[in-house]
Amino acid sequence: MHAIVRIVRSCICGSDLHPYHDLPASQQGIPMGHEFLGVIEDLGTEVSGLKRGDLVVAPFAYADNTCDLCREGLHTSCPNGGFWAAGDVGGAQAEAIRVPQAQGTLVKLPVGEDSELLPSLLTLADVYGTGHHAAKQAHVNARTTVAVIGDGAVGLMALLSARRLGAERVILMGRHDDRTKLGIDFGATDVVPERGAEGIEKVRELTGGQGIHAVLEAVGYRDAYETAVGIVRAGGVISRVGVPQYEEAPIGFGSLFGPNITLTGGPAPVRAYIDELLPGVLEGTVEPGRVFDQALGLEQVPDGYRAMDERTALKVLIRP
Amino acid sequence: MHAIVRIVRSCICGSDLHPYHDLPASQQGIPMGHEFLGVIEDLGTEVSGLKRGDLVVAPFAYADNTCDLCREGLHTSCPNGGFWAAGDVGGAQAEAIRVPQAQGTLVKLPVGEDSELLPSLLTLADVYGTGHHAAKQAHVNARTTVAVIGDGAVGLMALLSARRLGAERVILMGRHDDRTKLGIDFGATDVVPERGAEGIEKVRELTGGQGIHAVLEAVGYRDAYETAVGIVRAGGVISRVGVPQYEEAPIGFGSLFGPNITLTGGPAPVRAYIDELLPGVLEGTVEPGRVFDQALGLEQVPDGYRAMDERTALKVLIRP
Repeated sequence: MHAIVRIVRSCICGSDLHPYHDLPASQQGIPMGHEFLGVIEDLGTEVSGLKRGDLVVAPFAYADNTCDLCREGLHTSCPNGGFWAAGDVGGAQAEAIRVPQAQGTLVKLPVGEDSELLPSLLTLADVYGTGHHAAKQAHVNARTTVAVIGDGAVGLMALLSARRLGAERVILMGRHDDRTKLGIDFGATDVVPERGAEGIEKVRELTGGQGIHAVLEAVGYRDAYETAVGIVRAGGVISRVGVPQYEEAPIGFGSLFGPNITLTGGPAPVRAYIDELLPGVLEGTVEPGRVFDQALGLEQVPDGYRAMDERTALKVLIRP
Repeated sequence: MHAIVRIVRSCICGSDLHPYHDLPASQQGIPMGHEFLGVIEDLGTEVSGLKRGDLVVAPFAYADNTCDLCREGLHTSCPNGGFWAAGDVGGAQAEAIRVPQAQGTLVKLPVGEDSELLPSLLTLADVYGTGHHAAKQAHVNARTTVAVIGDGAVGLMALLSARRLGAERVILMGRHDDRTKLGIDFGATDVVPERGAEGIEKVRELTGGQGIHAVLEAVGYRDAYETAVGIVRAGGVISRVGVPQYEEAPIGFGSLFGPNITLTGGPAPVRAYIDELLPGVLEGTVEPGRVFDQALGLEQVPDGYRAMDERTALKVLIRP
């Protein structure tokens, strides 16, 4: 059920910055990274549909893709699944990686390892699928107004996904000029750099006071959640894909209950979305790979973390 | 836009017990009650489609039924709407009531005021529509397992609604024998009297460890919310219609986010549901009026509150 994959492209995720901040210093280091595409070098006997030499992409969680939960499209809760760089499973910022549940996890890509599409294809491992999850869970369609909180790679992918699902009005809340410019390229109709009460007032103004049908929260801090509560329209949805850095928050009559707000989201089952999202990437109708604005070798990975932490890089591509 | 309605039937709601506990004693009293059906005695000039002598039912929130929010089915957030027994609008535990937004609010009933269906028709004002809201917001269907937390009138209506929407497995969490017996009549497949950790374990056992797709929370206390989090299945929905008596609660990675739980619900826009629910009541395919187990006159209303507070009555009907 295993495979060994030689990693062709990997990258650094905004969520990697949390352990980057928290981990104690060590000489040996620990495995990191959960996004990769690569070439199958070796395969267990029970794996069918894949062969040595295939270029494949892996979701940020491995899964069997056959259990009840996977069949409900919830691969991140697969009882036989798990996460990279955890337990005895390695990280993706590496030369190679052992893949458990290879058949359920790896998806063959119909391009060569010299393809110019590799950066966009790599986003299927996490950020594009995660942005899509935010928009899909919020039932975004042509009739919904959308706001995206956060101009990191996931926020920009949520924006691109909302537009792809038909949203005509998408407000991007972010304050980094280079990122919001890319957001406008991805289809943002408005950019709101203000935060907190000022940002809430601005977004409410932009919607004639009514607020937003679908708020896609791609940050994870409690103030971002509070902004979401502040801008959401009665009957609307707050869809979270930023990993919450808090446990308790307001959900009572004065926040969610009174105006019938729905709160949804979680770790995206990106495996469930690859079949839907891959064709657009191959055809070039979307270019999610534009979130990568720096490319480094394996030895320079620490520089990559530093650049993302200092916001001098949006998302760093790794070429092992 | 107003009407004067002579009240034929009213009742006491579980949510009336909160002010019953909290209000300071007074000689004069205050208007209470938000569920009624009655006969139109007088009508403003701008009201069409209704006439004097019509028997009508009113939702627990009045609304214009024409604004953006009403057209989205969210009458409880109507900017021209409001609640009974608030501001200058009277309560429904009374001989008569002035109805603002009469045209958007009152729904004509095709029966006489001597009909045996009056108790069931009165549940369209709140508890039946509220139970339906819980089930509908949780997307209950034939493939969803359902648990209802709370065996009060709203919980029993959520149960009846889940069955009506096709659910084949509905677990009722409640510990009052007379209520859970009625729950079994309404279609509960299992009754779990245990609470807290014991109740959670019991429900998980009943679902082979996986938990519940749609948890309908009809209590409003924080321990009920925590039970909901404990029994919900990964990817499932917690739908709240019990008015939360708390503001903050866990919603982070360890509760809602990690397993992709959706939290929804709020004050039910029962006006939006009357058209759908009325035919079954008229045909007798559902008998929601069975939640009334005591009937009193206006002078005995204080006894009714006492009986509901002491759980010797499930729901008290008022005949002014």
